[in-house]
Amino acid sequence: MMDFQHVINSIHDDLKHEVNRGLVANYIPELSHIDANNFGIYLKLISGENFSVGHSNTPFSIQSISKVFALSMAFNFKGDQLWQRLDVEPSGDPFNHLSLLELENGIPRNPFINSGAIVIADILISQLDNPKADFLNYVRELANDNSINYNESVATSEKTTGFNNYAAANLLKSYGNLENKVEDVLDFYFHQCAIEMNCEQLTSAFFMFANHGVCLQNIKRLSSSQIKRINAIMLTCGFYDEAGEFAFEVGLPGKSGVGGGIVALLPNQFVISTWSPGLNPKGNSKIGMQALEAFTTKTKLSIF
Amino acid sequence: MMDFQHVINSIHDDLKHEVNRGLVANYIPELSHIDANNFGIYLKLISGENFSVGHSNTPFSIQSISKVFALSMAFNFKGDQLWQRLDVEPSGDPFNHLSLLELENGIPRNPFINSGAIVIADILISQLDNPKADFLNYVRELANDNSINYNESVATSEKTTGFNNYAAANLLKSYGNLENKVEDVLDFYFHQCAIEMNCEQLTSAFFMFANHGVCLQNIKRLSSSQIKRINAIMLTCGFYDEAGEFAFEVGLPGKSGVGGGIVALLPNQFVISTWSPGLNPKGNSKIGMQALEAFTTKTKLSIF
Amino acid sequence: MMDFQHVINSIHDDLKHEVNRGLVANYIPELSHIDANNFGIYLKLISGENFSVGHSNTPFSIQSISKVFALSMAFNFKGDQLWQRLDVEPSGDPFNHLSLLELENGIPRNPFINSGAIVIADILISQLDNPKADFLNYVRELANDNSINYNESVATSEKTTGFNNYAAANLLKSYGNLENKVEDVLDFYFHQCAIEMNCEQLTSAFFMFANHGVCLQNIKRLSSSQIKRINAIMLTCGFYDEAGEFAFEVGLPGKSGVGGGIVALLPNQFVISTWSPGLNPKGNSKIGMQALEAFTTKTKLSIF
Amino acid sequence: MMDFQHVINSIHDDLKHEVNRGLVANYIPELSHIDANNFGIYLKLISGENFSVGHSNTPFSIQSISKVFALSMAFNFKGDQLWQRLDVEPSGDPFNHLSLLELENGIPRNPFINSGAIVIADILISQLDNPKADFLNYVRELANDNSINYNESVATSEKTTGFNNYAAANLLKSYGNLENKVEDVLDFYFHQCAIEMNCEQLTSAFFMFANHGVCLQNIKRLSSSQIKRINAIMLTCGFYDEAGEFAFEVGLPGKSGVGGGIVALLPNQFVISTWSPGLNPKGNSKIGMQALEAFTTKTKLSIF
Repeated sequence: MMDFQHVINSIHDDLKHEVNRGLVANYIPELSHIDANNFGIYLKLISGENFSVGHSNTPFSIQSISKVFALSMAFNFKGDQLWQRLDVEPSGDPFNHLSLLELENGIPRNPFINSGAIVIADILISQLDNPKADFLNYVRELANDNSINYNESVATSEKTTGFNNYAAANLLKSYGNLENKVEDVLDFYFHQCAIEMNCEQLTSAFFMFANHGVCLQNIKRLSSSQIKRINAIMLTCGFYDEAGEFAFEVGLPGKSGVGGGIVALLPNQFVISTWSPGLNPKGNSKIGMQALEAFTTKTKLSIF
Repeated sequence: MMDFQHVINSIHDDLKHEVNRGLVANYIPELSHIDANNFGIYLKLISGENFSVGHSNTPFSIQSISKVFALSMAFNFKGDQLWQRLDVEPSGDPFNHLSLLELENGIPRNPFINSGAIVIADILISQLDNPKADFLNYVRELANDNSINYNESVATSEKTTGFNNYAAANLLKSYGNLENKVEDVLDFYFHQCAIEMNCEQLTSAFFMFANHGVCLQNIKRLSSSQIKRINAIMLTCGFYDEAGEFAFEVGLPGKSGVGGGIVALLPNQFVISTWSPGLNPKGNSKIGMQALEAFTTKTKLSIF
Repeated sequence: MMDFQHVINSIHDDLKHEVNRGLVANYIPELSHIDANNFGIYLKLISGENFSVGHSNTPFSIQSISKVFALSMAFNFKGDQLWQRLDVEPSGDPFNHLSLLELENGIPRNPFINSGAIVIADILISQLDNPKADFLNYVRELANDNSINYNESVATSEKTTGFNNYAAANLLKSYGNLENKVEDVLDFYFHQCAIEMNCEQLTSAFFMFANHGVCLQNIKRLSSSQIKRINAIMLTCGFYDEAGEFAFEVGLPGKSGVGGGIVALLPNQFVISTWSPGLNPKGNSKIGMQALEAFTTKTKLSIF
Repeated sequence: MMDFQHVINSIHDDLKHEVNRGLVANYIPELSHIDANNFGIYLKLISGENFSVGHSNTPFSIQSISKVFALSMAFNFKGDQLWQRLDVEPSGDPFNHLSLLELENGIPRNPFINSGAIVIADILISQLDNPKADFLNYVRELANDNSINYNESVATSEKTTGFNNYAAANLLKSYGNLENKVEDVLDFYFHQCAIEMNCEQLTSAFFMFANHGVCLQNIKRLSSSQIKRINAIMLTCGFYDEAGEFAFEVGLPGKSGVGGGIVALLPNQFVISTWSPGLNPKGNSKIGMQALEAFTTKTKLSIF
């Protein structure tokens, strides 16, 4: 068997002193003070072994990675009805996500652009009795770890500065694609994004996406077909307008967040998480992208 | 001298029984119940004579026509500094005004598209001690008529349904082009649009735009150069994406509102207002456009 | 009466030594060698007097100014049928004229953007027996000057480098909005743009647009209504995406060309032409725009 | 082992009498007469077995499927230099591919939209001594079949009607992203698209993409890394603006053409081709998409 510990150690060694680490996101004030030198990797094989290096146990704001959890929960509730309210196509567009929403009459391109994730949040708060508590509980169960929590000051920070998300939610509302109040949907959405997890917890929580819908606690949560579909969306839409680049360079379904985290997976084989807070110009973790590219190059493990 | 009363009478006769009167705006619930058969014309010559026919004394919601008053007030306060925050070019685009705002980094195309008018509203509430009272007072003074008022239920109606304007205001805020709180700016903006005036009052209030900035009360309110510039913006941007059509068919600076009103003017000669609530597909009064085209055709009075 | 000679002399004096004269167009190789210090003004009153200063008798490439001649000829042939194949709205868009054409299914926004002028050229070659000879003859008659000619090397220069126009013509063809062969239409179009005229000739040729359709030779060529409509299009669309700015600053219908010429007019009053080859970033003559703004400011003669 | 013959037989049975088979492409006149009832499937396992059903030996126009061959040839010549002239991101946009090209200054989104494929064609004719002969030879070698040929009348048909491709090529030329003459590049491009192959030949020719770059004749033609990258582009960009949908429903890298063919593959496992000429509204074979979805559902073989 491959010496995975050696592989991730060598990747970590190669990149930990890299000077150009990208820029820590500053549009959410609470996130702007994170030390850009944080760098962790956590790898979990489906067969059970785990490997880690660096800051793999330091919690960080998972941000857009939470959209995968929310999608899986909504998909479970609504099945294919979900796709009446949003699409599964890559957005392709870096700069004008509201433009696309206008052109397409309020139907978001996919569940991972902000407008799509806001529609998912709307669906969840219509379904859940205690949306924030229930969602947190779901993530804790997936990760099999009850210590996971919202960071309230990050949620508050987004609430007072996230004007672009207010614009998107109001535009959705103007097209009739939001059932609940803008304030309620965004309160949930900002909390969802403000969950803090470390690389180990993220890897555990994504286990089910590499394992046909069966989570770490051995509960079947989604059908194999639904899992396959979520993985497809991660591959085509998981990295903003750099999704093609990630598929091209890394070749794994995955999801990034502006907190600097990335989770990626090879079905039946492994889940891997990285964290490095500095972002490239497209908003994905610069060192994380490089680490995952190195990982699939060294191990020759990719879906392609 | 031309027999203007005869001209407007014959136009009114020709159009008052027209079956296809357009559709009354229904996106603001409070406006949807207006009788589409209302139809009035009021003409005021700079020389002092007045002519009217039909429902020229029935008040209606002036809606976007108010943007001309707001622009003139802001232009007076800020002079050419105004153009640091918005432009004077036609938008050309029917369907994607937020798209343009994204493409152009939060600088609205002109003061008459909603995003531009929201920037003007933001400027006014930064300048005025009692924004709503002071603005209403300004309009009353221009019209020389203290009976003019806000329709509070129209303002409230827009406040609870104007999600597209919330989207625009939040997008402006995300680009740093809004100083005040979204809620405060839109409260002012929805009130501004909810002023009720009749054709006579509108004609009186627009007198200064045909008279080098001197209003009916003989007060010089803007410089000749500023008035010329506002007239130019009315001509190029006053009719949404039908501005070219209005210039082409009518050939006068003017402004329409979704309440069904239109005001147009020939500098040094006259101001004319029409009201007919049914709108054409571009959102301008269908019968009003036809009446004004007939007026300039019959009188051969246009700027071209 | 105003001392017009003094007015244009003082404008010429103020601007002739201006250091920042804009950049001479270099995308048409043949035009790139013109001396940026050329600067002429020619003013013709409807009453008959003429005033000139500077290089008002040096011929230059009229380029897009020719679109007004072509439009007037096509309008005369086809009347309002013309508007089945193109619109009269400002394009508003600096950068993506083909985008608009795609969004609007091959119907150009107006006759002065390139795609619209190409449709007009297509109409003319379907109508004319000897398109190039007949068109040149028409311009000579309007100007009452048989010395006007095509510059063949400029036409050839555009033919070998005008890829964007080939793109537009082929896109029109793909939408079925071009009757003739792309090569034939563009050969005519490039010749039309390659006519050389001086300020005096341009002013003479535009006389009919300020005189209800009656040209210098006292022939009624278009109806008053058609002339009014062409003037409206000049005002709203005559200056690319700076049309609003020109209306705002100058307040006259007019048309510019990348050869550095501008013609503008006040109906019933005057026609004025300027030539200064350096362009501002929007593609309009920098000094010419300033000269015309100064002219309307000093004389207070504008349509607004 | 799975009974693959049974699987494809049952899929063929289920779909061969389906009434709604989509519309045969009519924009290329030569293709419009194909019988919509043609339907073939050919499956080749990397292990060597082959399975087929229906019209798997009837040649058809491969059209856009040829773009994968062209990309692989150009990638081999230029390596990663290729990506200086085009990108690898999904285009996301159904209707305005020239718009995107304008917005992105002449850099096509990916090698599978027409503008990107035209850039690839330009690269190939700069590299090849006898472009058309050499390219055909390359395809024959990949398929190990010298009977493959261009259909000259299809190539001629596109040449006289492919105005949109002329528009794209001229736009690329205007941005300096085309080295050769538009006519030469498109002559090559229209021939490339006019190659005729049957399902068996296509499956054979794609063998190397499922086999780390080693073709049927056991020649290593591209590196494993290059093959992985081409597969990634097929997955994210291979089905126009339905790429997300194909990834979601089918979950295999693949490429479709308007001739009704689709090829898809699972690395290390198999290549499968389908042919059914009727297209869905997005331009992909309607029955082919359904057949491939059924295949991955029944066999549970997908990359996700």
